[in-house]
Amino acid sequence: MGFHIHTSCRGIAVALLFAGFSTAASSQTTQERLQRGEAVIKSLNKGAPQPALERMRQEFPFLAEATEAYALGDVWSRPNLDNRTRQLAAVAAFAAMGEPAFMKIHAGYALNIGVSEDELKEVIYMVTVPAGFPRAIAASQALSQLLAERRAALSQQPGGTPP
Amino acid sequence: MGFHIHTSCRGIAVALLFAGFSTAASSQTTQERLQRGEAVIKSLNKGAPQPALERMRQEFPFLAEATEAYALGDVWSRPNLDNRTRQLAAVAAFAAMGEPAFMKIHAGYALNIGVSEDELKEVIYMVTVPAGFPRAIAASQALSQLLAERRAALSQQPGGTPP
Amino acid sequence: MGFHIHTSCRGIAVALLFAGFSTAASSQTTQERLQRGEAVIKSLNKGAPQPALERMRQEFPFLAEATEAYALGDVWSRPNLDNRTRQLAAVAAFAAMGEPAFMKIHAGYALNIGVSEDELKEVIYMVTVPAGFPRAIAASQALSQLLAERRAALSQQPGGTPP
Amino acid sequence: MGFHIHTSCRGIAVALLFAGFSTAASSQTTQERLQRGEAVIKSLNKGAPQPALERMRQEFPFLAEATEAYALGDVWSRPNLDNRTRQLAAVAAFAAMGEPAFMKIHAGYALNIGVSEDELKEVIYMVTVPAGFPRAIAASQALSQLLAERRAALSQQPGGTPP
Amino acid sequence: MGFHIHTSCRGIAVALLFAGFSTAASSQTTQERLQRGEAVIKSLNKGAPQPALERMRQEFPFLAEATEAYALGDVWSRPNLDNRTRQLAAVAAFAAMGEPAFMKIHAGYALNIGVSEDELKEVIYMVTVPAGFPRAIAASQALSQLLAERRAALSQQPGGTPP
Amino acid sequence: MGFHIHTSCRGIAVALLFAGFSTAASSQTTQERLQRGEAVIKSLNKGAPQPALERMRQEFPFLAEATEAYALGDVWSRPNLDNRTRQLAAVAAFAAMGEPAFMKIHAGYALNIGVSEDELKEVIYMVTVPAGFPRAIAASQALSQLLAERRAALSQQPGGTPP
Repeated sequence: MGFHIHTSCRGIAVALLFAGFSTAASSQTTQERLQRGEAVIKSLNKGAPQPALERMRQEFPFLAEATEAYALGDVWSRPNLDNRTRQLAAVAAFAAMGEPAFMKIHAGYALNIGVSEDELKEVIYMVTVPAGFPRAIAASQALSQLLAERRAALSQQPGGTPP
Repeated sequence: MGFHIHTSCRGIAVALLFAGFSTAASSQTTQERLQRGEAVIKSLNKGAPQPALERMRQEFPFLAEATEAYALGDVWSRPNLDNRTRQLAAVAAFAAMGEPAFMKIHAGYALNIGVSEDELKEVIYMVTVPAGFPRAIAASQALSQLLAERRAALSQQPGGTPP
Repeated sequence: MGFHIHTSCRGIAVALLFAGFSTAASSQTTQERLQRGEAVIKSLNKGAPQPALERMRQEFPFLAEATEAYALGDVWSRPNLDNRTRQLAAVAAFAAMGEPAFMKIHAGYALNIGVSEDELKEVIYMVTVPAGFPRAIAASQALSQLLAERRAALSQQPGGTPP
Repeated sequence: MGFHIHTSCRGIAVALLFAGFSTAASSQTTQERLQRGEAVIKSLNKGAPQPALERMRQEFPFLAEATEAYALGDVWSRPNLDNRTRQLAAVAAFAAMGEPAFMKIHAGYALNIGVSEDELKEVIYMVTVPAGFPRAIAASQALSQLLAERRAALSQQPGGTPP
Repeated sequence: MGFHIHTSCRGIAVALLFAGFSTAASSQTTQERLQRGEAVIKSLNKGAPQPALERMRQEFPFLAEATEAYALGDVWSRPNLDNRTRQLAAVAAFAAMGEPAFMKIHAGYALNIGVSEDELKEVIYMVTVPAGFPRAIAASQALSQLLAERRAALSQQPGGTPP
Repeated sequence: MGFHIHTSCRGIAVALLFAGFSTAASSQTTQERLQRGEAVIKSLNKGAPQPALERMRQEFPFLAEATEAYALGDVWSRPNLDNRTRQLAAVAAFAAMGEPAFMKIHAGYALNIGVSEDELKEVIYMVTVPAGFPRAIAASQALSQLLAERRAALSQQPGGTPP
C-alpha cells in the first residue's frame, strides 16, 4: 500500500511542476488547471482515466471541464490537507448526502492512495450520527460492492491472489 | 496545540480503562457506554460538558442518553480511525447536509484536539464539490463566527493574547 | 384533552357537511375545498386562523390558496387515517427533512387535537434512525420552545395554572 | 421545433377555453381542474398520456388526481410565466434535489415544447453551483440517456433521420 | 390481520421480559439490547431475520450491531407510542427524505403488524405536502411493488388466495 | 426596468471583451476568469460588490476566489441561456434545496436584471411540486422580506416613491 502512496505523491509532484504551480495562482491558465486535474485523477485512479468523466466529454464538454479543472484541478490538488484525509472527508460528505454511487468512486480512490478498508468502514459507521441509518447502510452496501469488485478483478490477474 | 492532543488522548485512554473497554463489547452496560461518552465529550470540549446536551437532559432524557451512549460512547470512541480524521469527516458531513450549527460545534471540537484552522478551511472548501456553494459558504460563515468567538474569549482571559 | 378531540372532530364533521363532502369529489368547487381547508385549520388551531397563512394572502394569494385548498382542504381532511396519526407522521416528515419551524407548527396542532407530549417526543427520538442526530436534536429544541411558549401562555390566563 | 411550440400553445389555449378558465377560479370544479391538467400533460407530452401517471390511477387514485388537478391543472397552467421558463426552472429544481428520474421526464417535456438541448445543458451545468457536482453529473447522465432514447425512437420511424 | 397484531405484541412482551426491561435502563448490557432488537425485528418481520441486516454482519459487524442494538433495540422498542403509529411515522420520514427502498422495508413491517394498505397510502399521499410530489410518487411506486410482491408470494402458497 | 437590462447586458459585453472571451477558453488565466466574475456580479448587483463575498475574502480567500472565478466567471457568464432564465432556474434550485437566504440574494439579482416580481412568485409557487410546501413557503417569506427591504430603500431615496 505504501507503494501506492509514493506513486501518487510523486505523480502529483510532477504534475504540479509541469503545470507551473509555483507561478501566481491568478496567472494560471485553464489549460494548466486541466492538466493538474488530469494528474490528480491519474494519481487517484492508478494512472487510468475516469470512465464517467470521459463519457461526459462528448455531450457535456463544459461540465467535464469544470469537473477536471475546478473539482480536481483546483479543489483536490490544494495543499494544507493531506490527500487521504480529504478523500475520507469526501466519502463522509457523499454518504451523508445520499449519493452512494459517488461515494463508491471516491472510496475506490481512497483505497488506491493507501486508505485502509477499516478507515472507510469507520467513516461510514460515523455517518449514522449526522445523517441517519439509511444513508450509512446504503454507503456500506456500496462499499461492500466495491470491495467485491476489487477482489474479483485481483483474482483474475495472472498470479493474482485476493488478500 | 500538541498539548491538547496529548490531553485528549490521555483523557480517552483513562476513560476507556475506566469503562472496561477491554471486556467484550456485548457485555458492556449502558452505564459504561454513558461513561465512555462523557469521557469523549470532555476530551473534545476541554473538560467541560456540552451545553446543548445538558439542556436536552431535562425534557428529552432518552435523546440525551442516545447522544451520549450511542453517538459519543459507541461511535466517537471507536478505534481504527484517528480522532482528528473522524472529526474532519464529521465536519464535512454536517456542512454537506446543510447543518452549519452542528458543524460549528464539531469544528470547535476539532480545534480543541489539534486540528488546524487551515485543515478545517480546506474541508469546507472541498464541500463545494459534493454539495455546492451555499452549503460551503454557510459553513465558512459558521467557522468565521467560531474563530471570532474563540479569539474574543482568549483576549478576555488574564494575560491572554490572540494568536 | 379528550375535550379537544371531541371539539375538533365535531368541527370537522360540521365543516364537511357544510362543504358538501357527500357530493362527488370531482364536482367540488375550489370554493368548497377552501372552506374545508379553513375548517381543518380551525379544528387544528383552536378555532384561530394560522398567522403565517394569513400573512401569505397579501403577496402570495395563490400559494395561500394552494395551502388552504390543497394541503389542508384535500390532504389533511382525507378519511382512512385518523387525524392524530397523520399529524404525528407529518411531524416525523418535517423533522426528518430539517424543517424544525414547520415541525413546531404541526406539533402545536398535534397537541391541540389530543396528541400527548410523550408521543411527540417518541416520534422525534425515532427520527434519529432515518435522519440522524442533528435533525432530531433540532426538532427536540423546537418542541421544547413550543412547550415553554404554551406554558407561558397558559400561566398568563386568568386562573390559568400550568399542568 | 417551432412547430411544437405552436401546437402546444394552441393545445393549452383550447383546453383553457374548454375548462372555463374565464370563470372565477374559486368556482371551478375539480372536474374542470382535472381537464385542465389533462390538457397540460397532452401539450407537454406530444398528445400522449404520461405512463407513470396512468399506472398510479389504479392503486393511488387520489395521488394521481392530485398530480393531475393540482400539479398540472393548478400550477403548470398558471399564467405570468412562460411555459419554457417554468419547465427549465423545474428541471433545475429536480436536478438540485437529486431526483434525476423526474428531471428526465420534465426535460423531455421541455424538449417537446421547444426548449433546446443546449438550454437544458446550461441549466444542468448551473446546478453545480447551488447543489454540487454529483447532482449535476447525475442530471447530465439522465439527459444523455433521454437524448439517446429520442434519437433511437426517431431513427425507427419510417423516413426518420436523426438530427 | 388482528392475528398479526396479537402475535407481534406478544412477541415484544416476551422479549422485553427476557431482556430484563424491568431492570434500570442503564444497567442493561449491549447483549440484552441486541436480544431486544432481535425480538423487535422478528415481531416486525413475521419471525424471520431481516436479509439486509444479516448481510451487513459480515463486513460491517459494528454497523449491524448498531442497527440491531440502537435502532431496533433502543428506539423501536420504546414504550409511550404504539408500534403502528411509530411505523407510519417512520414510513413518512423515509419517504420524505427520498429513501423509497427503506420506506418499502418499513411499509412491509407496518403491514405485518396490522397497518392497512389504505393507511399507508394516506401517509404517502400526505408526503406531497412536506416533501413534494417526486418523493410521494416514488414512495407510491415502491409500495405498489411491495403489494405486488406480497400478492405473488401469497398466491404461490398452497391454498393461498390473494385478498 | 428595461434600463437595467440594457445596462447589465452592456456591462457583460464590455467585461467579456476586456477578459478576452474571444480567445480559446483553455488559454484563459484565472485572473481573466476573476475579472469576468467581477463583471457578472456588478451587472447583477447594480454595480456594487456583493457584501457576503467581500467578507469571505478575509478568512476564506480561495472559497471567495472559487465563487468569483468558477460560479460567477465560468457558470454565470455562459452563453446559450439568457441571464433571466438562468437566474429564475437558480432561484428554483435554491428554494427547492431549502436555502432561502441564497434564494433571496439571487431573487434580488433577478429583479435587478429585469425579472418581474410576478415571475419570481410563479417560480416559487411551482416549487411546491418538486419540493413541497415548507420550502415554497420559506421562499415566499424570504421574497416578501426582500420586496419590503427594496421598497424601504426606495422610499428613503430623495424623490423616491414606491411603485
